[in-house]
Amino acid sequence: MPNIYEQHLDRNPANYAPLSPIPLLERAASVFPDHPSVVHGARRYTWSETWVRARRLGSALAQRGIGKGDTVAAMLPNIPEMFECHFGIPMTGGVFNALNTRLDAATIAFILNHGEAKILITDREYAPTVESALEQIGRSITVIDVDDPEYGGDGKLLGETTYEALIAGGDPGYEGREPDDEWDAISLNYTSGTTGNPKGVVYSHRGAYIGAIGNPMTWSMPQHPVYLWTLPMFHCNGWTFPWALPAVAGTSVCLRNVGAAAIYAAIAEEGVTHFCGAPVVLNLVVNAEEDERRPLGRTVEIMTAAAPPPPAVLERIEAMGFRVTHVYGLTEVYGPATVCAWHPEWDALEPLERARIKSRQGVRLPVEEGLMVADPETMAPVPMDGQTMGEVFLRGNLVMKGYLKNAAATDEAFRGGWFHSGDLGVWHPDGYIELRDRSKDIIISGGENISTIEVEGVIFGHPKVLEAAVVARPDEKWGETPCAFVTLKPGESATEAEIIGYCRDNLAHFKAPRTVVFTDLPKTSTGKVQKFKLRDRATDL
Amino acid sequence: MPNIYEQHLDRNPANYAPLSPIPLLERAASVFPDHPSVVHGARRYTWSETWVRARRLGSALAQRGIGKGDTVAAMLPNIPEMFECHFGIPMTGGVFNALNTRLDAATIAFILNHGEAKILITDREYAPTVESALEQIGRSITVIDVDDPEYGGDGKLLGETTYEALIAGGDPGYEGREPDDEWDAISLNYTSGTTGNPKGVVYSHRGAYIGAIGNPMTWSMPQHPVYLWTLPMFHCNGWTFPWALPAVAGTSVCLRNVGAAAIYAAIAEEGVTHFCGAPVVLNLVVNAEEDERRPLGRTVEIMTAAAPPPPAVLERIEAMGFRVTHVYGLTEVYGPATVCAWHPEWDALEPLERARIKSRQGVRLPVEEGLMVADPETMAPVPMDGQTMGEVFLRGNLVMKGYLKNAAATDEAFRGGWFHSGDLGVWHPDGYIELRDRSKDIIISGGENISTIEVEGVIFGHPKVLEAAVVARPDEKWGETPCAFVTLKPGESATEAEIIGYCRDNLAHFKAPRTVVFTDLPKTSTGKVQKFKLRDRATDL
Repeated sequence: MPNIYEQHLDRNPANYAPLSPIPLLERAASVFPDHPSVVHGARRYTWSETWVRARRLGSALAQRGIGKGDTVAAMLPNIPEMFECHFGIPMTGGVFNALNTRLDAATIAFILNHGEAKILITDREYAPTVESALEQIGRSITVIDVDDPEYGGDGKLLGETTYEALIAGGDPGYEGREPDDEWDAISLNYTSGTTGNPKGVVYSHRGAYIGAIGNPMTWSMPQHPVYLWTLPMFHCNGWTFPWALPAVAGTSVCLRNVGAAAIYAAIAEEGVTHFCGAPVVLNLVVNAEEDERRPLGRTVEIMTAAAPPPPAVLERIEAMGFRVTHVYGLTEVYGPATVCAWHPEWDALEPLERARIKSRQGVRLPVEEGLMVADPETMAPVPMDGQTMGEVFLRGNLVMKGYLKNAAATDEAFRGGWFHSGDLGVWHPDGYIELRDRSKDIIISGGENISTIEVEGVIFGHPKVLEAAVVARPDEKWGETPCAFVTLKPGESATEAEIIGYCRDNLAHFKAPRTVVFTDLPKTSTGKVQKFKLRDRATDL
Repeated sequence: MPNIYEQHLDRNPANYAPLSPIPLLERAASVFPDHPSVVHGARRYTWSETWVRARRLGSALAQRGIGKGDTVAAMLPNIPEMFECHFGIPMTGGVFNALNTRLDAATIAFILNHGEAKILITDREYAPTVESALEQIGRSITVIDVDDPEYGGDGKLLGETTYEALIAGGDPGYEGREPDDEWDAISLNYTSGTTGNPKGVVYSHRGAYIGAIGNPMTWSMPQHPVYLWTLPMFHCNGWTFPWALPAVAGTSVCLRNVGAAAIYAAIAEEGVTHFCGAPVVLNLVVNAEEDERRPLGRTVEIMTAAAPPPPAVLERIEAMGFRVTHVYGLTEVYGPATVCAWHPEWDALEPLERARIKSRQGVRLPVEEGLMVADPETMAPVPMDGQTMGEVFLRGNLVMKGYLKNAAATDEAFRGGWFHSGDLGVWHPDGYIELRDRSKDIIISGGENISTIEVEGVIFGHPKVLEAAVVARPDEKWGETPCAFVTLKPGESATEAEIIGYCRDNLAHFKAPRTVVFTDLPKTSTGKVQKFKLRDRATDL
């Protein structure tokens, strides 16, 4: 028999709404209609304008048949259109697939087909890659060109119409459709594919909402921040910040190209208060030339992740007037899932000691329900001794729905009721985690994941190559770069430049090795390459 | 056929957890074990201690048979035990019914029986009322006494054991039970029942969580606030702040008795940064004696609601270094549901104009999905003209599950898919609402509606006035006329003609009171003026 609280106290339209970030934009537009929403050079939008543009986009897509469960892909830099896609696409019931703009044509083609994109919105800058990808997909797809007036470079229009023409035909009063269920998909983000093809990570409206509400709280982000887009929005939907910013009525400052001078200029001229970025962005800021720098005018908050920031860089950047919040996450957990939550008493420590503490990945976000470091096989938590290595596991509402059309990978990722991050780390006595090794073959270069298996696969294709193994080599500017160890076929000879050039012809350029060593490969008795030995050699080069 | 996003992408233990505030306490304890959680005079607890005490409480209650859907009531002031109940009771699956400590014995007895409380936790201070209530309920109930060492007054122990003895028998490692569903009840809060018996408002784990995450964001509350308990925790579960504070690792400063000297002392000695309270608390602060005041040392944030704060009071308190955020809500919407969201450009206005703008109830919280002012019958929104009166309607995730064991009242409250607040107001052209009255408080004089709040706002501007309340007085000619009850500041004197003349200088003449009574104002436990008592007096004049 139901208890007294289970009788006539059900969900109904008055007391229950599916969690979704879309109503946050509607609210920002109705409460702060004239405040700046998105700023991009001479292009400046208010919240009411962004809301109207998103609604027009949604309406125009719906007119073209986009509805529940339909994928719309976008190959865009951090510009207003990219921000608008985060709302206009899911407003239709569709799913937003933001593409990594640095990928090669073959990978883009794979993703467009795997995700079954019906429409592609693409920026002129990426026309060569996109044109080639479109030739490879073997089916017709509606292409919409973004012709950004702030872009002065090359690149032809590929599609049937432009973004501005598209939305001009959309209804500014379009109501959109509420998700049938907050678990419905809102976006699709492909991982770099450490083993084989990239996997499509699916986010829900619920998870996007919880990230949007939770991240400002974690970061003590007040109302009306000015947020600079140094982090690509195609990375985990910009760590959910496109959805978070309307919740705090914050202004997005766009940057097509991230450079030190542009960052300092935005801080000085737009009053930037917050930005996110990989340690490579911290490096840019720290190593800026004298004539690129500008006074900050205020403490500027930086949220950083992707690779552990070196303590020396943390120390230097905080001395300059920035305050760094260190988070850790993956595409599968909506970006940040842990944070090095700061203890006020740590402020009194020596700068380098503070930086050492801050370089740890920390504890679960308040809106993530579980974190542990555990044995990868038995899933028994390791002791909190700061020494015993284990795999990092996460669980809770900031974990993906799963991998699209990949039941096996989804089941494997969720085995035992936890998300298996593949990252290795230790658990300190205070409960803070610290990564000791990314999963053993991934390289993180300038914030981008590079699969060593993918690079090795290309090198293996070179006619003179017998064997190859690729590992990360530490790099001051990029964090890490790929370093290839190559065994040539007997009697063959080759140069470093020849191998690198071959890779650049067959891979996204950032994935090509920066260093090539011709050598025999150390192996285990069962024939597996001992990458840990190669990593040591790469570090010593 | 399911779309590609509906295949093998289901909820599972890795990617879905029922939303609940309980894990927020677990996190605060694991991340900030040694930081102060709750401070009460000489009693000072850390997060790890509060977590252990809450677990012991949950365990001890479970040992006594409390489980899913069982009600545990508490008659407590704002002390550590009250804070712990917010976690220890729902951790068992039970439902927390916090009692208004100023109610009479008959009403307490009604609530204990209507809510079917199995256990009552009660403070010695309320022994006379509780003893009488227990005699009236006609059934046996387990009574646990809180014997607070910070309480020096009278009051006997009524129960079988004390709170400290109870929790001493609880397991500090008690795991509790996760709600089966986030919609499960977490608490039960009775309305004051101005018409007939009080109604039991039921909150869910989901709603409590969303309030806990949403309120700090709305208030720009950073990590580690120091929060003073001037608002009774029995009022809408302290507007969800007992659940919010662990999310931001904030410290609760308890107050058994709220007075001006105690508030200023807490600000000076405990470093209070935030507190909530009805306008009566603002009045206390503004009108404190010289020897009660202490320097603030920082901007102190006040969130106020319950009755519209008069612009004159707002102006004075902000000049003293407090910053007021004005919210509006009801028990049925977890406390605050709207906020007078501040526009930065309003800072440049004259103080009284700023205060006038701030006295509006504003816009929906980011975590509430719908707000409108509409015709109470047709539910058609009224024009946004700042003049047309309508009823305030709310909908979304910050709306109660319903009224316990009262299907008729629940259905009526949710008729048409919106929660009917019963409050009347106007909708300004900028989308901000402003309350004009409870529907029962409105004065209709010669066919014209008169907002008592508007008249009170004018009277508050008179330099000799401390407090004022305006009600309808029956009138043969006009139907009703406004009757003002006024409390003057200490040492002041004024005439009826002086007050009426002042109103006529600042209001449409028909809105000016016809009668002025100089007196103290009767108030509820939460500081609301009891207008029904004043109406009776006005009728008898």
